[in-house]
Amino acid sequence: MNTSISQSTPKSVRLYDLVLDNGCTISPFVWRIKYAIAHKGFAVESMPVGFTGIQKILDGKYERLPIIDDGGTIVPDSWGIADYLDRTYPDRPPLFATKNERVMARFFDAWLWREIFPPMFRCYVLDNYNFAKPEDRDYIRESRERLFLGGKSMEVTVAGREQRMPAIRQSLQPLRNALSETPWLGGEKPNYSDYCGLSAFLWAASINTHPPLEKTDPLFDWINRGFDLYDGVCRDHRLRPLAA
Amino acid sequence: MNTSISQSTPKSVRLYDLVLDNGCTISPFVWRIKYAIAHKGFAVESMPVGFTGIQKILDGKYERLPIIDDGGTIVPDSWGIADYLDRTYPDRPPLFATKNERVMARFFDAWLWREIFPPMFRCYVLDNYNFAKPEDRDYIRESRERLFLGGKSMEVTVAGREQRMPAIRQSLQPLRNALSETPWLGGEKPNYSDYCGLSAFLWAASINTHPPLEKTDPLFDWINRGFDLYDGVCRDHRLRPLAA
Repeated sequence: MNTSISQSTPKSVRLYDLVLDNGCTISPFVWRIKYAIAHKGFAVESMPVGFTGIQKILDGKYERLPIIDDGGTIVPDSWGIADYLDRTYPDRPPLFATKNERVMARFFDAWLWREIFPPMFRCYVLDNYNFAKPEDRDYIRESRERLFLGGKSMEVTVAGREQRMPAIRQSLQPLRNALSETPWLGGEKPNYSDYCGLSAFLWAASINTHPPLEKTDPLFDWINRGFDLYDGVCRDHRLRPLAA
Repeated sequence: MNTSISQSTPKSVRLYDLVLDNGCTISPFVWRIKYAIAHKGFAVESMPVGFTGIQKILDGKYERLPIIDDGGTIVPDSWGIADYLDRTYPDRPPLFATKNERVMARFFDAWLWREIFPPMFRCYVLDNYNFAKPEDRDYIRESRERLFLGGKSMEVTVAGREQRMPAIRQSLQPLRNALSETPWLGGEKPNYSDYCGLSAFLWAASINTHPPLEKTDPLFDWINRGFDLYDGVCRDHRLRPLAA
């Protein structure tokens, strides 16, 4: 009975996935798209690629991941993919239920990339290098030091990071406030804002050798529920603790 | 014909309004509630009160404004009022169309009060004092210097504010980004997030003697359309320029 087989096998979306040497996803843009695909009720078919492997896939046309292949339709860029999924599958749960939800997810993500990612990046860039595939390391050192660290070495950048952790934890206060009266940023259910926020912690969990949070951080309620979402689509036994 | 009169006179909501000596509203919490009442299609019946006049109204039961009196129902606190308006008038346009819209408005407002208001406050606290009613000035000096300025005088606090304006303008970048691809934070129409943001600029416009923005700031597109909303319910000829 083909019918029962096709009913029990959910449609899957192929996802080109940026991974470390141990196979764990690293990119916060990929993590959020894993959630987005699962949010729509689809299975994620992961195609793991290293940093320098991107030029070897899809005729070398793209420089960044994620990219999805949805039955032959190639869609790059995490925001482009989120919009594609809502546009193409309007009968499935929306990532953005209203235009305001999309605008505020953009604002929230801009806040993450201004206030949270840069100081964390300056703590974890060397961990990223050390956990990357051997063939990716030269590229990571050269590109990070030139583009993001103003020519400073990764080693100099991360030195003294322990002393910077309290300021990072403090900068997360607006997120704690927002989550103090709601289970999800999306309200009763998660939406794309949750996936943007969770992707920051999945990125940190994929590489950190000095955890950013304290065990008692109230954010863990949301983080743990978030990592468990959709049968643990983003759970990975290679993720490292976020608190000591 | 009573019918035509009642149709042409919109329902009004009484708003206890915190004002300066010149009668112009100052409180960012009051400004946003003016918008919220107008958003629901109601007229604002303003009851102007000075800082030290709050204890003389409503049996001295309240310490802060805004407070509304909606046909005998007294509701304090701006977030409480917004929730009351959505709950009581579900047939009117919602301030928050989804739970996520409210969560993200809270997040956006937390960002304003963390990143935008404090540095502006340290530029404009003396202007606030100078524009206040004479009977409010001792209270303003004492409470501001003790509660918010760590015992420093207002004069010492505002000194050198010209040099701090570029950093304030820079800190508004996430708002500019969010508004670069949408007419309103609410999407095609404004929602309560817009009113929270606009209230910061109305507050600054009510008191500043050194404007925070540059004339070419792309935020002015949104600010000007915002100040014009609802037949200019928040336009006031006493507002001062936000750019030189």
